Order: sequence, then C-alpha cells, then structure tokens
Amino acid sequence: MTVTEDIASGPARRKRAGGRAGGRIRAGTAVIDQMPWRIPENPDRPTEPLDEAGVEALHRGCMTILRDIGIEFLNPEACAILRQAGCRVEGTNVRMDEDFVMEMLAHAPASFTITPRNPGREIVIGGRHMVFVNVSSPPNAWDLERGKRPGDFETFREFMKLTQYFNCIHVAGGYPVEPIDIHPSVRHLDCLREKLILTDKVVHAYSLGAERVEDVMEMTRLAGGLSHEAFEARPRMYTNINSVSPLKHDHPMLDGAMRCARRGQAVIVTPFTLAGAMAPVTMAGAVALSLAEGLSAIALLQYINPGCPVGIGTFTSNVDMKTGAPAFGTPEYMRATQMTGQMARFYGLPLRSSGVCAANIPDGQAMWETSNSLWAAVQSGTNMVYHAAGWLEGGLIASPEKFVMDCEVLQMIQRYFEPATWATTPEDIALDAIAEVGPQGHFFGCQHTQDRYSTAFYAPIASDWRNFEAWSLDGAVGTAERAHRIYKAILEEFEPPPMEDAHRAALEEFVARRKQEGGAPTDF
Amino acid sequence: MTVTEDIASGPARRKRAGGRAGGRIRAGTAVIDQMPWRIPENPDRPTEPLDEAGVEALHRGCMTILRDIGIEFLNPEACAILRQAGCRVEGTNVRMDEDFVMEMLAHAPASFTITPRNPGREIVIGGRHMVFVNVSSPPNAWDLERGKRPGDFETFREFMKLTQYFNCIHVAGGYPVEPIDIHPSVRHLDCLREKLILTDKVVHAYSLGAERVEDVMEMTRLAGGLSHEAFEARPRMYTNINSVSPLKHDHPMLDGAMRCARRGQAVIVTPFTLAGAMAPVTMAGAVALSLAEGLSAIALLQYINPGCPVGIGTFTSNVDMKTGAPAFGTPEYMRATQMTGQMARFYGLPLRSSGVCAANIPDGQAMWETSNSLWAAVQSGTNMVYHAAGWLEGGLIASPEKFVMDCEVLQMIQRYFEPATWATTPEDIALDAIAEVGPQGHFFGCQHTQDRYSTAFYAPIASDWRNFEAWSLDGAVGTAERAHRIYKAILEEFEPPPMEDAHRAALEEFVARRKQEGGAPTDF
Repeated sequence: MTVTEDIASGPARRKRAGGRAGGRIRAGTAVIDQMPWRIPENPDRPTEPLDEAGVEALHRGCMTILRDIGIEFLNPEACAILRQAGCRVEGTNVRMDEDFVMEMLAHAPASFTITPRNPGREIVIGGRHMVFVNVSSPPNAWDLERGKRPGDFETFREFMKLTQYFNCIHVAGGYPVEPIDIHPSVRHLDCLREKLILTDKVVHAYSLGAERVEDVMEMTRLAGGLSHEAFEARPRMYTNINSVSPLKHDHPMLDGAMRCARRGQAVIVTPFTLAGAMAPVTMAGAVALSLAEGLSAIALLQYINPGCPVGIGTFTSNVDMKTGAPAFGTPEYMRATQMTGQMARFYGLPLRSSGVCAANIPDGQAMWETSNSLWAAVQSGTNMVYHAAGWLEGGLIASPEKFVMDCEVLQMIQRYFEPATWATTPEDIALDAIAEVGPQGHFFGCQHTQDRYSTAFYAPIASDWRNFEAWSLDGAVGTAERAHRIYKAILEEFEPPPMEDAHRAALEEFVARRKQEGGAPTDF
Repeated sequence: MTVTEDIASGPARRKRAGGRAGGRIRAGTAVIDQMPWRIPENPDRPTEPLDEAGVEALHRGCMTILRDIGIEFLNPEACAILRQAGCRVEGTNVRMDEDFVMEMLAHAPASFTITPRNPGREIVIGGRHMVFVNVSSPPNAWDLERGKRPGDFETFREFMKLTQYFNCIHVAGGYPVEPIDIHPSVRHLDCLREKLILTDKVVHAYSLGAERVEDVMEMTRLAGGLSHEAFEARPRMYTNINSVSPLKHDHPMLDGAMRCARRGQAVIVTPFTLAGAMAPVTMAGAVALSLAEGLSAIALLQYINPGCPVGIGTFTSNVDMKTGAPAFGTPEYMRATQMTGQMARFYGLPLRSSGVCAANIPDGQAMWETSNSLWAAVQSGTNMVYHAAGWLEGGLIASPEKFVMDCEVLQMIQRYFEPATWATTPEDIALDAIAEVGPQGHFFGCQHTQDRYSTAFYAPIASDWRNFEAWSLDGAVGTAERAHRIYKAILEEFEPPPMEDAHRAALEEFVARRKQEGGAPTDF
C-alpha cells in the first residue's frame, strides 16, 4: 500500500452525522456541525521567556534604534508631521526620543472593537481576546484537484465563502488570493464588493494608494448603511501595514495608515523581519528591530489622532541559512512571538501574530509548522491571528484543504479555552459517579455521563477517529482529501448572509461609479 | 494534480547537505545531521489551568476516593502488605487515609536518574528535565511500502535501530511492535537481548509476570557488566504499570512493580482513564480517578521501599461519544495533562505523559494531534514523554515514517528549550549590526551574521523549506515519503553501539539458558 492509496483513494464519502449541538450555521442542511460564533478568550498565563532584565534590554535596544539610528519614513507628509512633533528629521530619516514614543504609546487603547455591517460579528482586539483572520495575500492557490495555479476572482470568491462559513474565522482580512484576472485599478472595488456581500465579518483595506483605502472605507460605510458620522464614531474596518525592513516605512503604507487613523479606523503595524535576511540573525535583534519599526509608525498615528485604535504585529521568523528560504513555525519563530507578546504587554498594545508554515502541500509538515505557530499565538497572548486558516508555502499559496484543516485546529484552541475543560466543581470531580460505577462498571451508561455526553467533548469536523479497519473499509480517505470534500460541500450549500437591499444597491452604485472613473491609478 | 502525485511521486532523492554542526552520530556517513544527545530542560513556567482551590478540590476528591471508595488490589501479597500498613482491606478492596498516603508520598524522590549500560546515556526523571521514549506496545506496524501488518521481530529490530539512532530519543521503552512471530514464553528474552545489543539507552520491563520482570532485570545487569550490588545501588531500568480503570490494579502489574521497587529500580504508574468510558465524562473526574489509582500504587511501593524511584503517569483522554472510539491530542486531553502536571507537582512526583494521536496514517491529522499532545507535555512540565515518536491509530500502529516525523518535532522542542533563542545580551540585540546594515542593506553578508549563521537556527531533518517550484522539480516529495527515505537510509547505515564482548557473552548465555528452561509461563 502506498501513501497514494491511503490518502487519496476510495470513493466512499464519510457521512458526518453531527456532534456538538447548537453549532449549525443554518438549520437542516449544515455540511458540518461546527462550533458557534464566539470571540475566544485566552485564559492561559502567557509563556514568557524573558525576565524583567530581558524586557528592559529589549526596550532599551528598541529605544536606542529609534533615537540613534532612526527609521526612514518615505512619505513627506509623515516626515512633516513628525518634525512638527519634535522628532529629528534628516531627509527621510526620523529619530525619536523615548519620551515622545512613550507619550504617544500612552494614548493607544489597550483594547478596542471593530464593528462590521453585521453588529453580531463585532470583534474585540485586546485583553484576553483572540480572533482569527483568514489567509491573506497569496498570489497563488493550490487544491487537490487543480494543483498550483495563479489566483483568480472565482478562487477569491471560494475563499470568501469559506471565510464566512466557518464560525471560528472572525475577520475577512486581505485577499485570500490575488485575483490577477481583474485589473489592478479596479481590483479593490470588485474584491471588496464581493467580500462585503459574501461575508458580514470585519473587512480590511490594503494600504496601496489613497484611492484604494478611501474606496474601501466608503464601501464599508455604504454596506453598513452608515452615515459618515456613524462610520467615524467607532472602528468599522482596519488596515494592516508592513514596514520595509530594515528600518523603513514606505509611502502608500504610511498614507493608508494615516487615512485610517484620522477617521478612527484601526491600524495594525506589522514589520516583516526575517532573522538573517532583513533583520539580525539573532532573535532578540530581529525582535528589537521589528518593535522599533512598529512603534515608530504607531507613534506617528497616535500623534495624528491620539487614542486611535492600533495594534502591533510580529512577523519575525528566520531563514534557512543554507538556501535563504524563509522558515515558519520554527522554535525561533515561537520564541520571537512570545518575546514580542511580552513587549506588547509592556507597551500596552494589542498583539497580532500569524498561523504560518513553509510546507507546500497540506501534509504532516504543514500541520506541525502551523500547530507550532498557532500554539505560539496562544502562548504569546496574541489578540489577532492573521493567516489562521489556509496558508501554505510561506504565504505564496492559499489552499482550501488547508483552510478546513486549520479550522479544525482553531476550533480545538477555542474548546481548549473553555473553562469546562478544567472545571473542578463536585459535579466535575464526580465522586458519586465513581462510587456508583465502581470497579466493575463502565461510565458510558451512568446518569452522570448521559446528562453530559452530547457536549462533554470537542466534536471534530475533519478528523477521523475511527480505527484503521473502519476507516479503510470506508475508503481510507486521508486528511487532505476529507478536507477537500468538506470544502466542496460548503461551496455547494453556501448562502450569503442577509444584506439590506438598499445597502447593497448603494454599494453596487458606488462600485459602478468608481469603475467608470477608472478606479485607482496603477503607476505607484 | 492530486495529492497522490504531490505526496508520493518523483524519483528524485533530496540530498541532505547538513546544517547544525556536531550532531553526527558517527563521522562521515551520517544520514541526517541531527542534534546531539542531551537531556532537555524545560525552561517554561507550566501552563496551570487550576487555581489553588482547584488543586485543593482535586486533592480532596482523590483522597475521598482512596478513603471511602477504595481501590481493588488484585494481588494478595499487596493486600497483605497494605493491611500491615494499617489500610482497611476488605477482600481486594483497599481503603487508605490521607495521612498514610501523604506520608508515603513524602518518601518519594522528586527526581532520580536511570543509568543504562552506557553511563553516557543516563537520564534524569524529574525537575525541569524532559526525556522522550520511543513508541511502545502497538500490535501492528504500518509503513508506506507495506501498509498495515502485524508486528514481527524484524520490524521490532527496525524500530530499535531508529530508537538508538535518534539522539532525541532517550529511552528504549516497551516493544515498538509486539513481535508475534516469537512465542510469548521467550519473547521478552529475544526482545530484551536485541534491545540491549542494538541500543545503549535505558530499557524497560513489562510487568507481565514474575519471570519476565526478573529476567529483564538480570539481563540489564549482565549487559552492563554489573554486580548485583552495583545493579541495586541505583536505578538501571524501569517498569511502567497501568491500572485497570476504574479503580483496579491487577496481579502481574503489582507484582512487577513490587519486584522493581524492592531492588531500587524505577516504577512509573500510569492509569489509562478515558473520560466517558472507564472514567467519568468530566475531565476533572477522570483526572481525580487517575490520580487516586496512581497514588494508591505509589503508596504501596513507598511502604515497601521508602524512597524508591517512582513517577506518576497520565493517560487521561476522552472517547468520541458517537462511536466510543478513543480520541487523543484533543483539547480535553491537553487540559487533563496540564491538570495532572499541577497535581504531580503538588504531590512532589515526576510526571509521565505521552505523544499521541488517533490518526491512522502519518498525515495532517496525525501531526496536529501529536503536536497538541507534545505541547501539552511541555505545558504540563512532563518529565518523561512516552510514545514520543512513531505512534498512530491510538497506539495500535507503530510507523517508521511517523517516528522520523515526530523526531523532527521533538528536536524542535529541544531547540525551543535552548536559552539562545531568547537571549538578550548586547550581541543578541545587535544594535551595531543594525546600524552597520542600515536601511538599504541586507543582514546576510554582515559579520554579525557570518559569525553565527551555522548555529543560529534549528536545522530540520524531514522538513522541506524550498519553494513549490524547487520542491516540484525535485520530485514533489511529501513529508511522509521524505520520512520514509530517511528511515530506510538509517537502517542501511545503522551500526550498533559498542558493547564489551564479555557482557554480550554473559547476556547471550543467560538468554540461551532461560530459553532452555522454557522462558516464562504463558498461562497467567
């Protein structure tokens, strides 16, 4: 028998008979019995590798970078604002003192909400809350049927349906694949229209030019049927910006961040510091550089609009020193994430990290790397997990099978957070049941079990817990193939969430008008 | 393209060019560059879901079971000893008071060593130390070439070679597969002879009858060239006993444990409490029952030989309530492991847990379940991880591919424990390198990187970090197939560790004599 036969063979379709009650997206026809929507709260004390001196050393390193080396702000407006704020600006190089940075950080809220067009999908970013974002920005897709291919709009739509379907995905982040069959000038219009119709979850704008950011804010406002005042009264969407490590913020990212900040929309600042490439080969050095880059942009935004919602992201990993290839979910990645978590708490900022792997297909390596990165998210006290479902090949591939498999892991993390799993009331310790069953009995039949069995344990969606023989007789279907079937079934049965006709009409009208105007310039 | 083509196709053999220095088993011909032998130390503060009241509640529950419900000791000798110790014995039911239990537990060492025939392979059980044990006791094997089949002696030998080869496997525990081609009366003689020749790591005796335990102790003594006094002067091997949950210890397990304890050899007591089956459906109930069973046997052993080396094991998981199938690596499993870790520290006992999954083949599910259980081991402060490499199908299958894949995860955990990954010295924070490279540069070429690149990061053994195109051109070999090739290459090049001729001769002579005598009775 080969892995071929084991993983992909067999015509039999396993019937998924249900499990945990209450998780159905809609009655009757649910493909899978998933957990209900919730904003998970992480009850664990974070894993903190740094002692107090380590935190102080990283803080000092970060402040020294900001004061003595400086960050390049490739945006004249940002430079002018920072000069006005008292920073030392020479050309594009901006140096800031600790007092200024810490004063600005003190404005930043430790926690904030983002409210999408369906207020029932409001998320909290901060505190013990942890939300999961779909895979964002791969240029390519891979699935079991079609292999690897460039992203297109139909594939984008498939991922939007998965994003909406799974209750454990809280945010419709960036484009799950880049739809290259749509011209870049209007891509954001088509993508956001589709996203705002196919999902009712929090959406995101790429900071790739003023028009794109402004259009997405306007589309989010229209899809929610909001006045301009209502839109700006609280965060309704967000952007995520990446620095150009080492030590640089580019023009469009800063522009988009400033536009969002001015209108009270959320900004996550996520440097991408690969140790050994665009960051020092030592993890603490890569983290210090990442923090300096992130804090410098956050200081700018807090100066522009004190108290505006911001978060700091970490994307610190290492390269393979033999090939230069980026590695993800490594031990070094985990410690960097935990260290950044300690520093985010030190600075009072919500933390974003990611669910990542270097693997090319959704196999064993993909899942141990992704598990490592997701457990690092838990251990670090991460508030927002980007790429939590669907990511492969270091972010170059989005895979629907991986999306389903990751959602299994995310659901398990949500269940892991439930206090029922460690409750120690007398009913939990169950001495009466132990006495009743005694040394000869079995607990399955006792009343204590019967009262609880339907909700006692995590009920899987893609895992197959049957023994080898039962599993073989049913076709010996491997994990990736099971996930593929779930993905297909979800697409078949998908229905978009309700949307008021007037809101949809306003959205469509806006898109039509902006397309007529030519969309966004594509020469930046 | 199908998963078939992606995972198994392609004739190309990826050359593994090395990486981390110093990890070669022997010069020149190493199949893989693995990490050197070490006893890992877990620096993390354990994840502790229970507050003080929760610990107290579990303790009270456990003591109430021992005092009011009692444990069945299906061994007259054990009952007589416990009666003499002041316990209330009625038939096989033994009730013990808290004072007695706690007095006995106070004798147990918090940490101990086990020294095999090669003293360089001595292990520490306790404190922050964490050792990894090969998969033990599956009846069947599965590999990519041969599929599932019953265990046999040749397969047993293959797994012993893997156990010896990998530096991250510290203990040659139970039989990786049950060799059914050898008669049960002499199986332990052949297996232990082979284990003691093919490995120089700590070995284990099954407590399945007096002769087996005594034979293994004698074989361990002879293989090490030890006098009887030297053998008994310190732990040289160990046994692991399982209770027959709920509430029972059987005759041979108790017999073997008492024999080992009397001669100062180590005993791990591991109840197997599946919540909803042989334990309450609530996790705290399953943990309380497991603890009560475990502590009752440990109290017996400490009464027999105060201070003898013991550990408490946890094997608390849940069943799938729809099918009754055992589940592993679930959220409930993780919390049960963490809770037991808290209680082990409360009682001052070393903790054993496991690396487990329910998956039938080494695919995505196998690795997320195994990752969950291994991270639970880390989070719980586990000292000894059974089944750390090679386990599938809830322990019914041992797989060499899974063995190799798990060793990758174990090595990553070992690297994760290294303080270098979170060091914050000035050289780590690397301000000089950041200033030197500046905003336009790349860190690869700078001296700070050149001085460190060869040991800066974890170097993988089975992971493929190349991009999709390079990986495809080289045959698109999936994780399980890569692991298969590594397993085959290890077997080809395997050389047993050195052994003194006289010790080997004494071992062979003993085995021959005991076989002539008929080995062990098989009618128990």
